[in-house]
Amino acid sequence: MLTKESLETPCILIDEHVLQRNIERMADIAAQNGVKLRPHIKTHKIPEFALNQLAHGASGITAAKVSEAEIMAEHGIDDIFLAYPVVSPSKIRRIIALAEKIRVIVGVESAEGASRLSKEAAQAGMTLPVRLEIDTGLARTGVRPDKAVELAKRIAALPGLNLSGIFTFKGAVFEGSGTLDLEAAGREEGRIMVETAEKLRAAGIAIRDVSVGSTPTAPFAAAVEGVTEIRPGTYIFYDRMLAVMGACTKEDWAAKVLVTVVSVPSEDRLVVDGGSKTFATDVQPGQHPLHLKGFGEIVGHPDAVFEKMNEEHGMIRTQGPHGLHVGDILEIVPNHICPTINLHNEVFVCKDGAIRAVPVLARGKLA
Amino acid sequence: MLTKESLETPCILIDEHVLQRNIERMADIAAQNGVKLRPHIKTHKIPEFALNQLAHGASGITAAKVSEAEIMAEHGIDDIFLAYPVVSPSKIRRIIALAEKIRVIVGVESAEGASRLSKEAAQAGMTLPVRLEIDTGLARTGVRPDKAVELAKRIAALPGLNLSGIFTFKGAVFEGSGTLDLEAAGREEGRIMVETAEKLRAAGIAIRDVSVGSTPTAPFAAAVEGVTEIRPGTYIFYDRMLAVMGACTKEDWAAKVLVTVVSVPSEDRLVVDGGSKTFATDVQPGQHPLHLKGFGEIVGHPDAVFEKMNEEHGMIRTQGPHGLHVGDILEIVPNHICPTINLHNEVFVCKDGAIRAVPVLARGKLA
Repeated sequence: MLTKESLETPCILIDEHVLQRNIERMADIAAQNGVKLRPHIKTHKIPEFALNQLAHGASGITAAKVSEAEIMAEHGIDDIFLAYPVVSPSKIRRIIALAEKIRVIVGVESAEGASRLSKEAAQAGMTLPVRLEIDTGLARTGVRPDKAVELAKRIAALPGLNLSGIFTFKGAVFEGSGTLDLEAAGREEGRIMVETAEKLRAAGIAIRDVSVGSTPTAPFAAAVEGVTEIRPGTYIFYDRMLAVMGACTKEDWAAKVLVTVVSVPSEDRLVVDGGSKTFATDVQPGQHPLHLKGFGEIVGHPDAVFEKMNEEHGMIRTQGPHGLHVGDILEIVPNHICPTINLHNEVFVCKDGAIRAVPVLARGKLA
Repeated sequence: MLTKESLETPCILIDEHVLQRNIERMADIAAQNGVKLRPHIKTHKIPEFALNQLAHGASGITAAKVSEAEIMAEHGIDDIFLAYPVVSPSKIRRIIALAEKIRVIVGVESAEGASRLSKEAAQAGMTLPVRLEIDTGLARTGVRPDKAVELAKRIAALPGLNLSGIFTFKGAVFEGSGTLDLEAAGREEGRIMVETAEKLRAAGIAIRDVSVGSTPTAPFAAAVEGVTEIRPGTYIFYDRMLAVMGACTKEDWAAKVLVTVVSVPSEDRLVVDGGSKTFATDVQPGQHPLHLKGFGEIVGHPDAVFEKMNEEHGMIRTQGPHGLHVGDILEIVPNHICPTINLHNEVFVCKDGAIRAVPVLARGKLA
């Protein structure tokens, strides 16, 4: 049996009790609001955890890439929303093949993408359910609400497709608005989506699913009348960014990275054996709007700053003497857990002191 | 046979002619300066490429993690410098096991780390060659030159170890100095190392190897009399950062990331299917001292700015109308190729139009 002491660092340790509580609490939020829960598996990339979510209140899952969906389907998951504009012919053919075995819904957001999907689906004699992506402010992918009716009509007229819903990702919603008011952001996200759905229905398109929400906004968007589904992902582990946003407490952190102190240059500096190959660097210190100090929180040393990384080196500076030595083990909660998980081939799941290795089977699935 | 058109994006495409030229040119630089070349394999993480380097002038390889060294040894590489302070008992035992099969040199930089290594090596009845890491300005790991004699004496007195060399990593050398003068930086790096070696020799320690250099400084540090070895890594592919530094030209770029345009929000904006799961984010736009614009260069569109990423979305803004469409394929050279390779399970190697997939066998080796 694995013990915490026997683990090679750096590695990710997951507290299964906290994980389970997180899974069940979001399911309760969905149930209380009368909406479906379709978690995004990009956070964990682990079929076992997706099955756990489905056993505890989720009605299906969300994935970003076809290859992720394929792995999940191989492990018994039979209802997947691919919330991504799939436009390459080879990938569309893989979706069609998958849709012959399980329920697959696909995101669309351009006439060209929808037309490609339509052609292959019609050729396969299939009617593929699709959802139109709406841009609720992130300015990434998705059609702007004022252009949605026009595009939706074109998509609804295409053979082989059934435009049954709309979806959005507003993410941290800070772009543009600059607000940290998650409740206001979630309500706004819900309102735009419900209004857009009404416009499409008025244009004769039978929109059934109105799907919203990431972890920070989902609880509030779920409460908007007319929203039918939420798609949070990070809530299964939460992370430092979400705690700073106020979307969780530190007690909700289910995943921590174990590292070893490999060098002690001075009484207020440390180097650990995890750097940018171990911790994601997409959420940088000082970045607007969270202005996070450093790349993660060192558990038990909340004032220490994880100030710099190279690939295999993590540089930490403490306020005053740290009292740590070469060989000591530290636990760090990364700023952003989703891309951090993607750097690890396996995670270690701990329950009542017993530890087991769980492979991150949908890790590195880019295509 | 694979063709460029048949590849699923996002993926990394490597031009084997350029790769070969890069390998041979750095070998020539080492030979002309009468120093050994011991490339760091953290850039490519591929045994085939390491063997290619050894067949073309390299005298051994460098690795950062024990698990990387193990993979390389499994594939026939028999001379590895582990340029990292290994301090965990389990990892030290793995090093000893490896050193029973092949030549392994290990980096040390603290009395505690050296003592742990000594204990295990002596117990195994082995004399392990070690090199002392010198901090030549990066302020990461390594002992400061003025403290080197004291620490070296303690290490040299330990059983089971043979302190045969010193090494440094100065990297881009901008920390502190703020200079972009690679020649001055390389000469300074070499000078400090040769002076430190002389001091250790004067103290009775037989320093044979004086090992320096990353890709940008190696050609200049190699020219310093008394330097015996260079350890560049990135030169096998080069990347955008090195081109901006003046350490290579765009013709030297051997690795490019292929992506597909999945959304065209406007005539000056694009979204591609590669984000922070595909491109490393450790070298951020605007970061001192290079002030790179964006996360990579879009080949054929040098003025386009790869301005933002989410995990699966890359947002590009062009100066004026881009004329691109959903489904178009683009090639992007990332700011930093080493951690980008670490995100890919395989790379595609292209030679005269023929393409083959090569697994990145030492990818994700964290421990």
